[in-house]
Amino acid sequence: MNSKSVIISAGGIGKRMGTELPKQFLCIHKKPVILHTIEKFLAYDPKIEVVVVLPAGFIPDWEALCQKYLFTAPHKVAVGGEERFHSIQNGLREVTGKLVAVHDAVRPLVDVSVIAACFELAEKEGAAIPVYPITESVRKVEGDLSYAVNRDDYRLVQTPQCFRYEIFANAYEQRYSKFFTDDASVVESAGTKICLVDGNRENLKITTPHDLKLAELFLK
Amino acid sequence: MNSKSVIISAGGIGKRMGTELPKQFLCIHKKPVILHTIEKFLAYDPKIEVVVVLPAGFIPDWEALCQKYLFTAPHKVAVGGEERFHSIQNGLREVTGKLVAVHDAVRPLVDVSVIAACFELAEKEGAAIPVYPITESVRKVEGDLSYAVNRDDYRLVQTPQCFRYEIFANAYEQRYSKFFTDDASVVESAGTKICLVDGNRENLKITTPHDLKLAELFLK
Repeated sequence: MNSKSVIISAGGIGKRMGTELPKQFLCIHKKPVILHTIEKFLAYDPKIEVVVVLPAGFIPDWEALCQKYLFTAPHKVAVGGEERFHSIQNGLREVTGKLVAVHDAVRPLVDVSVIAACFELAEKEGAAIPVYPITESVRKVEGDLSYAVNRDDYRLVQTPQCFRYEIFANAYEQRYSKFFTDDASVVESAGTKICLVDGNRENLKITTPHDLKLAELFLK
Repeated sequence: MNSKSVIISAGGIGKRMGTELPKQFLCIHKKPVILHTIEKFLAYDPKIEVVVVLPAGFIPDWEALCQKYLFTAPHKVAVGGEERFHSIQNGLREVTGKLVAVHDAVRPLVDVSVIAACFELAEKEGAAIPVYPITESVRKVEGDLSYAVNRDDYRLVQTPQCFRYEIFANAYEQRYSKFFTDDASVVESAGTKICLVDGNRENLKITTPHDLKLAELFLK
């Protein structure tokens, strides 16, 4: 049994990018986004158990990509489900670690120090996620109206989201809800307090061509 | 009397950048940030009245910079105050337009179409600002605890924030409050509804060296 596992969440098929390949497979700075991402976790712990969750039709593309870019690190593959929630459930079946992280395949810019901080706090407290402050003014929208709120009261949430295995597996026995936008919301709904770690601001989620350009700049 | 004015808010002295010059004076893609910014408003309306609010000690730097970069467009200069609120009050004294925009000097990436949309809606409704949706999960922090909130209920606020002159001037007669984080919050506090316009996502506020690199990338 490995002590740590990471589920690389790559189940989405990226309708927003206007490209044929899902965004996690697009190449920036010499290799596909998803390989940059996985390498951050291997840099943190070369023995970490890697579980990649892929869209159903893209397993052959993944295999071709591993060959092309000489990616030979041991890993498991799981198939994506209807919603992100079901994809993570599928990935979870492959996990054997005592601590589990879930990380978006499209976040290659995570700092290794943030990965370390999340695993450490999750081991101690059960659940830890990286967040960062909001620097813009924030408004809350209610129907046709909106009003200013105090931005200091809010945080933006990133990944990796790390949990003790039994807490995580137990939370994913719940029935799916559309309010589950990330793993923290699933685990929180099952009654575990979420601890916060300072994330690194560059750790953006690549969802648009604009993001892809940004990420390339920062990987260089 | 010009029909439109813009207050370029450059009163801050940028303690976060670790540079000697305030960030609005730093050079990216061949000229200082603040000149890129002003040129966006001149591109929108070559006759717009420009009021630049500068930190007290930096008027000579501003004059030297105008000479060096051959910036000869007519403009007025006002001196920054203790807080942003007081800086805008000082700028407001120079304004003669029927419609007033306030724009951060450190937002050179605003789209001209966003400037146009804000002025148009402000003319019709009194107050209009650009906002954009939050793509990350959001948590609200309360003391030692935090909980997931629905990100669809929130917007991030940018500038230019545009107002009819009388609404704006009236709002700035209020006493200063630390909850005034932008002009919309000042105007809202005086009883005017704020209308929202879709902003352009690239329109970031340059506050760190990281932002400066991003902005340079997008200006190229």
